[in-house]
Amino acid sequence: MSAKIRLGILGGGGDSLIGVLHRVASAMYDQYEIVGGVFNPNYDDNLAFANKIGIPTDRIYTDFETMIAEETKLPESQRMQVVSVLTPNFLHFPMAKTLLENGFHVICEKPMTTTYDEAKIIKKLVQENESIFAVTYTYTGYPMIRQMRKMITSGAIGKIQKIDARYYQGWINPIIHDKSKRSSTWRLDPKKSGISCCIGDIGTHAFDMVEFVTGKHVSKILADLNYLYDDNQMDIDGTILIRLDENTKGVIRASQIATGEENGLAIRVYGDKGGLKWEQENPNYLYHLEDGTPLRVLKPGHEYNTELSLDGTKLPPGHPEGIFDSMGNIYKGVAKAIKGEAYDHAEFPTVIDGTRGMDFIEKAVDSHKKGNVWVDIDK
Amino acid sequence: MSAKIRLGILGGGGDSLIGVLHRVASAMYDQYEIVGGVFNPNYDDNLAFANKIGIPTDRIYTDFETMIAEETKLPESQRMQVVSVLTPNFLHFPMAKTLLENGFHVICEKPMTTTYDEAKIIKKLVQENESIFAVTYTYTGYPMIRQMRKMITSGAIGKIQKIDARYYQGWINPIIHDKSKRSSTWRLDPKKSGISCCIGDIGTHAFDMVEFVTGKHVSKILADLNYLYDDNQMDIDGTILIRLDENTKGVIRASQIATGEENGLAIRVYGDKGGLKWEQENPNYLYHLEDGTPLRVLKPGHEYNTELSLDGTKLPPGHPEGIFDSMGNIYKGVAKAIKGEAYDHAEFPTVIDGTRGMDFIEKAVDSHKKGNVWVDIDK
Amino acid sequence: MSAKIRLGILGGGGDSLIGVLHRVASAMYDQYEIVGGVFNPNYDDNLAFANKIGIPTDRIYTDFETMIAEETKLPESQRMQVVSVLTPNFLHFPMAKTLLENGFHVICEKPMTTTYDEAKIIKKLVQENESIFAVTYTYTGYPMIRQMRKMITSGAIGKIQKIDARYYQGWINPIIHDKSKRSSTWRLDPKKSGISCCIGDIGTHAFDMVEFVTGKHVSKILADLNYLYDDNQMDIDGTILIRLDENTKGVIRASQIATGEENGLAIRVYGDKGGLKWEQENPNYLYHLEDGTPLRVLKPGHEYNTELSLDGTKLPPGHPEGIFDSMGNIYKGVAKAIKGEAYDHAEFPTVIDGTRGMDFIEKAVDSHKKGNVWVDIDK
Amino acid sequence: MSAKIRLGILGGGGDSLIGVLHRVASAMYDQYEIVGGVFNPNYDDNLAFANKIGIPTDRIYTDFETMIAEETKLPESQRMQVVSVLTPNFLHFPMAKTLLENGFHVICEKPMTTTYDEAKIIKKLVQENESIFAVTYTYTGYPMIRQMRKMITSGAIGKIQKIDARYYQGWINPIIHDKSKRSSTWRLDPKKSGISCCIGDIGTHAFDMVEFVTGKHVSKILADLNYLYDDNQMDIDGTILIRLDENTKGVIRASQIATGEENGLAIRVYGDKGGLKWEQENPNYLYHLEDGTPLRVLKPGHEYNTELSLDGTKLPPGHPEGIFDSMGNIYKGVAKAIKGEAYDHAEFPTVIDGTRGMDFIEKAVDSHKKGNVWVDIDK
Repeated sequence: MSAKIRLGILGGGGDSLIGVLHRVASAMYDQYEIVGGVFNPNYDDNLAFANKIGIPTDRIYTDFETMIAEETKLPESQRMQVVSVLTPNFLHFPMAKTLLENGFHVICEKPMTTTYDEAKIIKKLVQENESIFAVTYTYTGYPMIRQMRKMITSGAIGKIQKIDARYYQGWINPIIHDKSKRSSTWRLDPKKSGISCCIGDIGTHAFDMVEFVTGKHVSKILADLNYLYDDNQMDIDGTILIRLDENTKGVIRASQIATGEENGLAIRVYGDKGGLKWEQENPNYLYHLEDGTPLRVLKPGHEYNTELSLDGTKLPPGHPEGIFDSMGNIYKGVAKAIKGEAYDHAEFPTVIDGTRGMDFIEKAVDSHKKGNVWVDIDK
Repeated sequence: MSAKIRLGILGGGGDSLIGVLHRVASAMYDQYEIVGGVFNPNYDDNLAFANKIGIPTDRIYTDFETMIAEETKLPESQRMQVVSVLTPNFLHFPMAKTLLENGFHVICEKPMTTTYDEAKIIKKLVQENESIFAVTYTYTGYPMIRQMRKMITSGAIGKIQKIDARYYQGWINPIIHDKSKRSSTWRLDPKKSGISCCIGDIGTHAFDMVEFVTGKHVSKILADLNYLYDDNQMDIDGTILIRLDENTKGVIRASQIATGEENGLAIRVYGDKGGLKWEQENPNYLYHLEDGTPLRVLKPGHEYNTELSLDGTKLPPGHPEGIFDSMGNIYKGVAKAIKGEAYDHAEFPTVIDGTRGMDFIEKAVDSHKKGNVWVDIDK
Repeated sequence: MSAKIRLGILGGGGDSLIGVLHRVASAMYDQYEIVGGVFNPNYDDNLAFANKIGIPTDRIYTDFETMIAEETKLPESQRMQVVSVLTPNFLHFPMAKTLLENGFHVICEKPMTTTYDEAKIIKKLVQENESIFAVTYTYTGYPMIRQMRKMITSGAIGKIQKIDARYYQGWINPIIHDKSKRSSTWRLDPKKSGISCCIGDIGTHAFDMVEFVTGKHVSKILADLNYLYDDNQMDIDGTILIRLDENTKGVIRASQIATGEENGLAIRVYGDKGGLKWEQENPNYLYHLEDGTPLRVLKPGHEYNTELSLDGTKLPPGHPEGIFDSMGNIYKGVAKAIKGEAYDHAEFPTVIDGTRGMDFIEKAVDSHKKGNVWVDIDK
Repeated sequence: MSAKIRLGILGGGGDSLIGVLHRVASAMYDQYEIVGGVFNPNYDDNLAFANKIGIPTDRIYTDFETMIAEETKLPESQRMQVVSVLTPNFLHFPMAKTLLENGFHVICEKPMTTTYDEAKIIKKLVQENESIFAVTYTYTGYPMIRQMRKMITSGAIGKIQKIDARYYQGWINPIIHDKSKRSSTWRLDPKKSGISCCIGDIGTHAFDMVEFVTGKHVSKILADLNYLYDDNQMDIDGTILIRLDENTKGVIRASQIATGEENGLAIRVYGDKGGLKWEQENPNYLYHLEDGTPLRVLKPGHEYNTELSLDGTKLPPGHPEGIFDSMGNIYKGVAKAIKGEAYDHAEFPTVIDGTRGMDFIEKAVDSHKKGNVWVDIDK
């Protein structure tokens, strides 16, 4: 029998892009075996998909409830150890909750839940059960982001004095200006997507990135969101002032109406000894600035990188790895945790990160609706 | 006798960098002849400097008052037509005022004055006298910034929906963390530098750039400044939310503690048809984004550029011009105005721009001190 | 039973990087199942490795000969359909030959063989047997390289008039200047590595890239190689003039002593209507130049790309894919061929490309040794 | 009387771009006063131009011969000290020769002459007369090229082992494919332009740059030129293998049919301790590579640069200077030489550089015509 970790998957069938991303990521370091799951709500599609991707169909279930019922009957040595939740957002919470209650570890797509209250319930369960719970803020798996975190937390740029995160996309531009399109897309429907579009979908990534690379918590925020049209109920753009402590300030900028932008996540952190800059669309370059010395450009795979960064690079310098590799690193970290091996807490985002992200979304909308005032992020 | 414009210069002697910049700019298109001025407060230094740069010394004056007295005695065909004011900031207002009152045109370094009230006095004088008055927001002279303005104002990117300006420097970092240094530099002394350091010095450039490239006015702002130390009286960093109208939002980010940054002015504007991006440190590239088409990179000197842009480029594509050339373009525009030739109002920043800049500085500090609230910029 | 293609693997065990690359690539589109092979010469290591990566051990063989013997006994519906050859270079030829003679399809690492004569034998076998035979010139799988090929072959840049390929690395610099190191590395030992180091290892990639993106054949070359030390028997640098036809000229530049370079493969092709440029270390950017229009930057995943390019991109624009994804695309193409599905001949490099590469290596060395003279590449 | 150097100018009137470049360059450091010359062959145009640019007309002459006759009559303290020769190429030699014979220093546009023989005559005259003679290989004045030279000659990258220079333009593409255009442009007429178009015009710049940054001489070359059409008598593209000594090899690539390229001069030099890379279109970035350390990016104006580099930078880091500034630095160096001040021999290219450039052109054509064979460059 394979020594691989037994992985179940919920969602991600058919043409799902997120499904491809997670499957490839799980295969990348030979750590997981997909043993079953529910890829599609329709059972025939479900089976067909399992065949298509070469998974035995004996543990492909008709629905989530059956999966839980059947898997829990299996001896511990056979049952799924971890389940990846790739279903629509509103299902993340009930599925994650049930999985945790039944002793499964969970890899959960973001947003972790649709409300902060739900997130806190999940967090409590994870902590009580001592479960492994990863939220796939995928971008934290990039080697140079890991390097950035380790450099900052070890003092390479000194005391932080300025933070600037950006996440600009343009995809909603062709939708937002057409009344029928903007009223019919699920992304702008609060019933399907929660209270925020732009901040909820990408602002959270930027927020998580700020906390990930600095190793610190944002303490309060002041948000100015943009809805563009009165009949549009969801923000599609926003600028958010942030403070870590009284003198550590910064800004998170997010937009889905930055016309022509693709997936422009970027972060800069400046301290009293230096600065670091990184952009997701060119993820293999980390820029290190200091007073009076030439700009330094760090790249993956070099010995000058930290262990955490090198652990996430498979090939020698100059062989660009990308987003699949980044997600692969997160799966690798989860595998270490499940196997009880030593790992760095930066190897995958946890339920704490996911919960903070939900708080951030609600507080951003709250700040905006109150007239752009400061609101506290919970500790 | 030369048909060149007779230019006087105040300040800019000795090792002054700004002096070099203005002299080269004035020479660039063979439009000006420096006929005299007061380069230094010390008369001997003043004469020595005039000799060094090859200016006849007969109209090198002992002081500003003498210059005004003597020049106004000269027949109109001989007296200075325009005077460049390159003196310390607090002298801009009294000198500009006197020059205008005596019928001289003025090219004034920024900040135009030290207070908004002073600026309004200058503006009134300029308008009453129909004087030519340029404020040297140097960066507006770059060919690709001119191109950006013309593209935006002619509708190339449609209705503006997002504006993002940045001006990051790191030069104050080595000063700010040392108590004795920060208490002794004139840049952080309100008596010498007015009420703002970062916003006053570079935030205004970003503000002016926003209005220059969009051809629109910022209507209100909400500022969050950073002073870092309680004993420091001047902002050294700030993020400013801006609104043009209710749904046209944006942000101006400025910092002098972005450690390692040199002179990082940049601007992005997104409309419903496209986006444009530009960075001062690589001024010869203008990035044009649209949904579903490849990114386009415009460069100076090509026929596809507008007349205003081409007018500011001397050599064929691929021969990089820089900041001296940018200032040269502003001087060229002023020359056209003085000669009564047709010119585009974008060829040089005017007293209106300078006045708005002073309003912006005061309102930014006001917004911050009131607890980060919205304040209106005057129309 | 899975409908996946049954894949065998030779070599690539232990810490082999190439092994990881091929396994991930085979998993990327859910097309292959690794059913067995010989990962290591040592049988215990071989079994341990199979366990580590979760492959059933029943078809893990003690050696290549046993694998052939046992696999050929299996019914056609069970035996390996295709075998990836990842062993040391000198084993490529005998293994590929035996595999082909026994009816297996082959995915062969480059160089395909150690001599041109061997390559011709393989080519003959492939053509006689109508086998599928891929040589993993990995870089041809990048979406923007596929786009470049399709644009050029469809006439987007007109008649080709200038070609410039570069492959610069610096890895041998720390070795070559140390007499004991350079005399002991297998890379510089003709008995182990054939007649060429730099041209054989990376020059061939550049040569293949020239022919891949242009869809044309190089007709003759003139090579100037560099060995740096008299006691060094293998080239570590070389510049090679190339001609496609009498007026279509170009150059291939390759070096392993370009100190500090990582994996700098790049190609530029200029025609009478435009030019295209690409660099491997930033593989998701394709630069398209034309007279009098702004530079255009094409990126993967956009609808403006050709079908072949889009077929090799899994996620929307702005989600960088890398070298694993590139190799995944080659495996995807081979899968289509094995399944008898329609595919574009540019989806994977064939035995013809591999054979031409071997001719190129021998001719380059020949040209150099004869005093840098023109030699013909076979048609 | 001004202490400025008395400068005469030949050519550069009307709309001449090179005229603008030299005038601005001469003004940049307040070192020169243009006292007269012959801007245009037509005397009325000549006078009108002098008035336009504000030069007194008393020393604007009807023709070159008159200028020599009249200027030599003036006392030494009044006569022109140096004359800039900006006339058509075929006039460089006779004018430079006469100027030198009459005791003037010379700043000569490139190519210095139209033949190598002429160049040697000029060189002999300069050496006999101990004249100051600068050839305006403009690009050598860039601060980061000066930095590159000083780093290489001081050993920063160790022993040179690979040189790669490129100069790609596309401007002749719209001309070359049209028979009537290519037969009528003076650039492709040997009677007007000498024996080479591409190598003569831009290949020489690349050659000079190789020798400038390395501080070494090319000893032999092997050229492959391209004429594209049988009825075209002048090369428009070429690749040239170069050797400094037996194991120091490299390549110079030049093209005027690199469609869409603007002014793509670039150089890379690799030694056994590191590498340096620079591109003219982004002249303020110098890339320094070493084994195992992050890439370093040097920029102008920082204290880490050498004195020679800093001497050519007027403003603080982040204020981009360009090609006018580069030419200004060459004029600054010539001024030091004329004044008898200490200067670095790298401050301006000399008659030796100009002469070597002419040899290079003739040898490149010779190598090509003989069938792409090695020919020696004179020592």
